Amino acid sequence: MASVIATYLIHDAKGDLQKKGEGIALGLTIGSWTDLPQLQQEQLKKHKGEVVSVEELSDSSQVNQYLGKQVKRGFVKVAYPIANFSHDIPAILTTVFGKLSLDGEVKLIDLDFPQEVKQTFPGPTFGIDGIRAKLGVHDRPLLMSIFKGVIGRDLTYLREQLKEQLLGGVDLVKDDEILFENPLTPFEKRITTGKEVIKEVYETTGHKSLYAVNISGRTFDLLDKAKRAKELGADCLLFNVFAYGLDVLQALAEDKEVGIPIMAHPAVSGAFTPSEFYGIHNPLLLGKLLRYAGADFSLFPSPYGSVALKREEALGIASELTKEDSFKKPFPVPSAGIHPGLVPILFEDFGVDSVINAGGGVHGHPDGAIGGGKAFRAAITATQKGQTLTDAAEQDEYLKKAISLWGL
Amino acid sequence: MASVIATYLIHDAKGDLQKKGEGIALGLTIGSWTDLPQLQQEQLKKHKGEVVSVEELSDSSQVNQYLGKQVKRGFVKVAYPIANFSHDIPAILTTVFGKLSLDGEVKLIDLDFPQEVKQTFPGPTFGIDGIRAKLGVHDRPLLMSIFKGVIGRDLTYLREQLKEQLLGGVDLVKDDEILFENPLTPFEKRITTGKEVIKEVYETTGHKSLYAVNISGRTFDLLDKAKRAKELGADCLLFNVFAYGLDVLQALAEDKEVGIPIMAHPAVSGAFTPSEFYGIHNPLLLGKLLRYAGADFSLFPSPYGSVALKREEALGIASELTKEDSFKKPFPVPSAGIHPGLVPILFEDFGVDSVINAGGGVHGHPDGAIGGGKAFRAAITATQKGQTLTDAAEQDEYLKKAISLWGL
Repeated sequence: MASVIATYLIHDAKGDLQKKGEGIALGLTIGSWTDLPQLQQEQLKKHKGEVVSVEELSDSSQVNQYLGKQVKRGFVKVAYPIANFSHDIPAILTTVFGKLSLDGEVKLIDLDFPQEVKQTFPGPTFGIDGIRAKLGVHDRPLLMSIFKGVIGRDLTYLREQLKEQLLGGVDLVKDDEILFENPLTPFEKRITTGKEVIKEVYETTGHKSLYAVNISGRTFDLLDKAKRAKELGADCLLFNVFAYGLDVLQALAEDKEVGIPIMAHPAVSGAFTPSEFYGIHNPLLLGKLLRYAGADFSLFPSPYGSVALKREEALGIASELTKEDSFKKPFPVPSAGIHPGLVPILFEDFGVDSVINAGGGVHGHPDGAIGGGKAFRAAITATQKGQTLTDAAEQDEYLKKAISLWGL
Repeated sequence: MASVIATYLIHDAKGDLQKKGEGIALGLTIGSWTDLPQLQQEQLKKHKGEVVSVEELSDSSQVNQYLGKQVKRGFVKVAYPIANFSHDIPAILTTVFGKLSLDGEVKLIDLDFPQEVKQTFPGPTFGIDGIRAKLGVHDRPLLMSIFKGVIGRDLTYLREQLKEQLLGGVDLVKDDEILFENPLTPFEKRITTGKEVIKEVYETTGHKSLYAVNISGRTFDLLDKAKRAKELGADCLLFNVFAYGLDVLQALAEDKEVGIPIMAHPAVSGAFTPSEFYGIHNPLLLGKLLRYAGADFSLFPSPYGSVALKREEALGIASELTKEDSFKKPFPVPSAGIHPGLVPILFEDFGVDSVINAGGGVHGHPDGAIGGGKAFRAAITATQKGQTLTDAAEQDEYLKKAISLWGL
């Protein structure tokens, strides 16, 4: 029987990870085994969970001290037969990490899906290649920026901010994730206004760009809102998936009448991911599951800013998004704390197939968002040519100002 | 301007909780303030977040040692004007704990809603009084049990298990939360079969009972499924709300065509709640938010079993569920590790208005589920009469066997 295989990081005070794993494998499938009659064992065999492997880690005195008990740490893999659950994310999560999430120091690290389950997921509709085709940009990281300070502002303000960002050479502009339906800048008006500005800039400069509008409100209204957004010509949806559920993202991605790229925002995901003892590992949640569920972009904290992720976790997310698989690849978007001086390290860490995303690093430029955008684009060009930013700044005033403000 | 007030537990390495709070209050509302012109300050004032209070806690050397840094700990309350977001849970969570959930050691402890927002929530449709009216039981805790080992079993097996539990005097039986749509015991058949058994037991014994069927599958199918369940005469829905989203629960609770009680299961909630540094506090998530969103029952780990919650957190959940408020009260259902010997402490901790819920403590009785149910009912009667279980066991064979198996 094909199985979904879950990998857990377990801290077990009883010190027997194999036994703990077996308790999980039985407890989360058929419940009991050895006390069943032979005939029932035969009948239930195909539903029985199995421990696939146990990998012990060395003891950590820091962990033992904090927990106030001696624990055995290790990775345990358990296989759950796919006959046990419907092939949707809520059923899978409830099976592999429902009750278990409440059972002591257990973190869900990874899930491996057999083909039968995998094929039920949509994956990204566009992915990196599809987004690049829309923008006509194939050879460099994309540049994204964010509206800033938009609560309480009107459409004129948004229009100006958008135009400045685009004139700076930004490829993608996303809504602030805390901008919801509101009378000053309603969803539909943001879409049509954004479209006008994008068209205007394209007609004057030839620069193509996309605007991601925040789709929000009640869950059961989202499909209709997304279709309406598409009708109005929206380029892309920004979606706070973790304030809803991964299955809602999947439904948005699957709906053929929606059919526009979806940018997954990591808001609220920090309620699940940062603990070493509990929750869900970042590369699984913001990487693999977002990809399977159909995100075209995954935003996550960069390893550089004040709101930072550990470097190996950020790289782990990017790896899950871009490794070869049957699904298209969503763009990794390492975010927060990004300024032009970081472009070389962004290249090194996330490669050409990533989005360089900045808020303050665009808007806070001495020459405004136009200057910020241009400084980033200069840094990208220089890095691709193998030039240092210090050298490039000699020829580019915007980059020079950015570097003297934020450093390298 | 009315505000939603969020309480956070913050561990701040910079040691200035007031400043950290101000950064949050601005960063999650209008972004910047002091550098805005006077006129804009006037315009944006009603959108500006404010620090309401800061309460420092004493330093914890255990925490400092674990984090590897000296942190100032404390509770910080921040007010978010309700003009900033639509009045739905995803928008509120994204505002108060979206980006912030990713910003270091910050846990969301509580949310206070002003009347304008509160009135948009449904609260429980039935609550304790409504459920009691359905069962005709007004003066004791309800007794609930759970189907056991149902994966791979057929309707005959479920029918027998249900009948045994009911004949033991159980008031409520719930599906196993890991039982999803499946060919052997499909959702609709479970409802109709459950109904038959309940009717049969009522007609022979006069004992009323309710069966909570697990509603599962894709998010956008749930409303139709719930309506179909109602049509088929389902008594109650079991719902793995944290594998979906609180807003989905709210939609199920609000829909007048559904109109049957909803039992919220805590599966997956342990991905959010157990860390002292991150995530969402149990009394808020499993207490207040479930109540506001419309759960009629909230299951949570009891403080007694192996999958246990700290006593103060379990009591904190129960308190949020049952304190006086404009909403009806959902039943607190402390679960896991419950056997008849615990009934006196369950009374003491959770009172008469609670559900005593057992799996193994019913099914594992030497006389089977009938014996288990009867032992629980005897323990409840004894405790209400002020009798010790030891004394009561003298007159009740079932209770006697339970106590000799599981102790007091």
